[in-house]
Amino acid sequence: MEIRGTGIGQGVAVGPVVRMADALPEPVDRPSHLDPEREGERARASLSVVAAELANRGAKAGGAAKDVLEAQSMMAEDPSLIDEVTKLLATGKTAERAVYEAFAAYRDLLAGMGGYMAERAADLDDISQRVIAHLLKLPPPGVPNPGHPFVLVARDLAPADTAMLDLDQVLGLVTSDGGPTSHTAILAREKNIVAVVGAADAATLADGDMVVVDAADDLVVSDPTTEQVAHANERIAERAALEAAPVTPGALSDGTPVPLLANLGSADGAAEALKLGAEGVGLFRTEFLFLDADAAPSVREQQEHYTRLLTAFAGRKVVVRVLDAGADKPLAFLNDAHEENPALGLRGIRALRHSEVILREQLTALAAADAATDAELWVMAPMIATVEETRYFERLAKELGIRVAGVMVETPSAALVADRVLAACDFASIGTNDLTQYTMAADRLLGTVANLQSPWHPAVLRLIADVGAAGAELGKPVGICGEAAADPLLAVVLVGLGATSLSMSPSALADVRASLARYSPDDAKALARAALAAEGAAEAKQAAQAAASDITTARTSAS
Amino acid sequence: MEIRGTGIGQGVAVGPVVRMADALPEPVDRPSHLDPEREGERARASLSVVAAELANRGAKAGGAAKDVLEAQSMMAEDPSLIDEVTKLLATGKTAERAVYEAFAAYRDLLAGMGGYMAERAADLDDISQRVIAHLLKLPPPGVPNPGHPFVLVARDLAPADTAMLDLDQVLGLVTSDGGPTSHTAILAREKNIVAVVGAADAATLADGDMVVVDAADDLVVSDPTTEQVAHANERIAERAALEAAPVTPGALSDGTPVPLLANLGSADGAAEALKLGAEGVGLFRTEFLFLDADAAPSVREQQEHYTRLLTAFAGRKVVVRVLDAGADKPLAFLNDAHEENPALGLRGIRALRHSEVILREQLTALAAADAATDAELWVMAPMIATVEETRYFERLAKELGIRVAGVMVETPSAALVADRVLAACDFASIGTNDLTQYTMAADRLLGTVANLQSPWHPAVLRLIADVGAAGAELGKPVGICGEAAADPLLAVVLVGLGATSLSMSPSALADVRASLARYSPDDAKALARAALAAEGAAEAKQAAQAAASDITTARTSAS
Repeated sequence: MEIRGTGIGQGVAVGPVVRMADALPEPVDRPSHLDPEREGERARASLSVVAAELANRGAKAGGAAKDVLEAQSMMAEDPSLIDEVTKLLATGKTAERAVYEAFAAYRDLLAGMGGYMAERAADLDDISQRVIAHLLKLPPPGVPNPGHPFVLVARDLAPADTAMLDLDQVLGLVTSDGGPTSHTAILAREKNIVAVVGAADAATLADGDMVVVDAADDLVVSDPTTEQVAHANERIAERAALEAAPVTPGALSDGTPVPLLANLGSADGAAEALKLGAEGVGLFRTEFLFLDADAAPSVREQQEHYTRLLTAFAGRKVVVRVLDAGADKPLAFLNDAHEENPALGLRGIRALRHSEVILREQLTALAAADAATDAELWVMAPMIATVEETRYFERLAKELGIRVAGVMVETPSAALVADRVLAACDFASIGTNDLTQYTMAADRLLGTVANLQSPWHPAVLRLIADVGAAGAELGKPVGICGEAAADPLLAVVLVGLGATSLSMSPSALADVRASLARYSPDDAKALARAALAAEGAAEAKQAAQAAASDITTARTSAS
Repeated sequence: MEIRGTGIGQGVAVGPVVRMADALPEPVDRPSHLDPEREGERARASLSVVAAELANRGAKAGGAAKDVLEAQSMMAEDPSLIDEVTKLLATGKTAERAVYEAFAAYRDLLAGMGGYMAERAADLDDISQRVIAHLLKLPPPGVPNPGHPFVLVARDLAPADTAMLDLDQVLGLVTSDGGPTSHTAILAREKNIVAVVGAADAATLADGDMVVVDAADDLVVSDPTTEQVAHANERIAERAALEAAPVTPGALSDGTPVPLLANLGSADGAAEALKLGAEGVGLFRTEFLFLDADAAPSVREQQEHYTRLLTAFAGRKVVVRVLDAGADKPLAFLNDAHEENPALGLRGIRALRHSEVILREQLTALAAADAATDAELWVMAPMIATVEETRYFERLAKELGIRVAGVMVETPSAALVADRVLAACDFASIGTNDLTQYTMAADRLLGTVANLQSPWHPAVLRLIADVGAAGAELGKPVGICGEAAADPLLAVVLVGLGATSLSMSPSALADVRASLARYSPDDAKALARAALAAEGAAEAKQAAQAAASDITTARTSAS
């Protein structure tokens, strides 16, 4: 059977399915054969073990996952919850049942209040399941560990799940929910895991089913034929060869350079990125420096990390994005947790402007790191929507010693007035994930609107073309740092629309490099025109594929 | 003192300030002189009274406010809360203090869980305040009733507050929070209340301060001079004269017709709209038919209401928008309450497509009402983002007997591919509120990003120009039904950008009619060009004002 979804990257994997554990059955409400005191000891022991486990997992995971897991850990030992369990045990129930009922009562209280409550209700369910699993000596829900390599099939992976993924064992990931910019998809790109997300029919896959996961074709094949497996293994070997090929700078077929840069979330990834042929860094995210902290890190701490990054990329371009807090990555000291639509809220430059000292300190640390190293530092601001915001950032950055200051283009407005925005700063970098989200008005983390989230949509391509044209007119660089740049064919279209560099997860560099080398600048423009004229995202991709195929055919018949 | 904010409409008001009541002080923790049983009776009695009051207010308010208030009413009588109060009373506390502590404990539990919890925590605070006020025989927090006409000053008005507003007493509204598309602003427009919203310094106004509220100038003047009061009173008289002027069809100075239509939320508003000169309905919202129900109303019920509407507008155009559920107006039977960013979620046509039977029934009821009456019914779909969605809606509408089917343009993508969208349907109507929200990526209900929410921004104007150009090219009508059409100068710019009709709250018709009559089609295009070329929203408005002033000056010197 063929199951359709959205492939992440170009990889192929073959292996047996292991599903995320199903929910435990509801504990039967029967009288306990132990006395309430003994059941109380059992319940408290399991609650403590689960609380400790959650806290441990949080400490290992770090980042945003840490906060989530620590909050869960505290809920597991909430005194009023334990009181409620004790009260239920006094009526003769088992520890399993009492835990089940006590958590269910809290859960219903929350869920009954409506709105966003149910999200935390799900957290309570998760803790309850873990405690009951511990009491019953069953495997806890979550990522399984079957002891052999496997294809993990899940509804979706929570940050807490991904923290525990053993990458030596996971051949591929298939999820029934989640779009191309879900956390699962981002993880898959970062870790170079073969993945197909948003494959609704994946729910039909069972433990042990053999599958071919084909990310390039957006497909999962269950119960594949011998030929299909052989073909998949050939492609796996081809891709291994491609990855082992010598690394050259990114360029079109006529030699026109298109620098291929890395998206990095920490200086720790520098060596790997360089090994995979990154010619510099196109998007350095600085959130990780702030996520674990209750307040912003000191200028000195920041400067040390930036210096390490810039030293690793001596002689190369490094584009650093200042703190992009808010939306799906809020910081307690910077963001308001009560926004109805955090993606449309006080995030990015908007939040920094409200807490300007944080921005000033970050720019100061960056300028100091730049002065102390030989890399070419560019600094850009996230979530710019207006020329006025552009001027604000550019002036402050220059005042604090930044030599090259630019903006992320990720709101439709910034793209629509790109000529005026680019006139007010040194460069633009297009964040295609958010730009697609806002242009289509579809949450990029929400599975039910995943069908609207393609950067191939001609509306998105037209905005990118506007920025490209403004850059060409004013002689200013226009990079792409969203995940669209990691799609080998779309990368060619983006260059055709005017992108002067492409930045991506280092794992995608080899595929994009090989793809760019197949097309001339005129070819890229022809692909871009074909895609722009299409009616929707699928049609744009098809039109680009057809144009690419025409070019290949013409070249073959000419030679 | 002058306090700046965002004026709603063009009105002026003069009167004394009355502020929304401040929060009650924390009840002192002292031993009660009554016994716990007596205190328990007091507490239970007040909880019941408040629960009943909230339920009553909900029943009176109807709509979304009803659900909120009924949920609050149930919280006030939650058995575990009453248990907690009883437990606290047993330790000798007063009813006031026990209620305070019990609610605070629940509140902290919720708030401590982080994220969106704190929203419901605020609901608990509100109930707690009401109960304590009842116990102390103090006025409850909320909208005051001083017994004389007044200017209401508040942080912002909740739907529950606005439900209780006595419009004969409220001369004007001033809020320190909230943008031009906040609930307060929408209410002010609908009810024709003079209002200035998002005026941060309004916090400095005290009860009894005399103020001039000048919506046209985005200004509140406290402690005005005699001249200022006299000038305000003159303008109030002028506006009364304008409103009393004979009603003519909307047209530019050369007679080019620009039909002026009404935004309506129920057939009940038809008579008032006609009296104010509405030439038809440009946006009939159908949500009210669904908001009070647990399921969609029957085809027959809907048909009756639509027939009443169409009968009132016999011989005229009536544009009905099919159900736009989701975002800030979710329906339990249609929307998922757990979206992180409901404005970017499964709303409008996306939600209807998932529950197609509701859409089919509504279209069936509309077609039947159309067949039974003499109005010219047009039907449009909300939240269209792609050509594919346009085709889906157009086919279904025609299949079910709708003669004219079109789309709302409120996502940037629909505007960017307007040529292809308009080719696939009969007309477009631009919803400027949501279009601005998505283009600027700024929640239209969030005060902290209110500075980004102007439809004057050249990025928004450019998208409107794209739709206007596509309409002209294909010979298809392009209406405006967002509140931008209610701004007399912006209305001229919108016509210059290609809008063929304007729809607004009926209270704005007189001002817009008078403004359009001052400019020729070439004037309107000149104003549009000036605004489009500007750098930001404020500059665009200034550029249009300057162009308008040039036109007036040229005409005066020529005559």
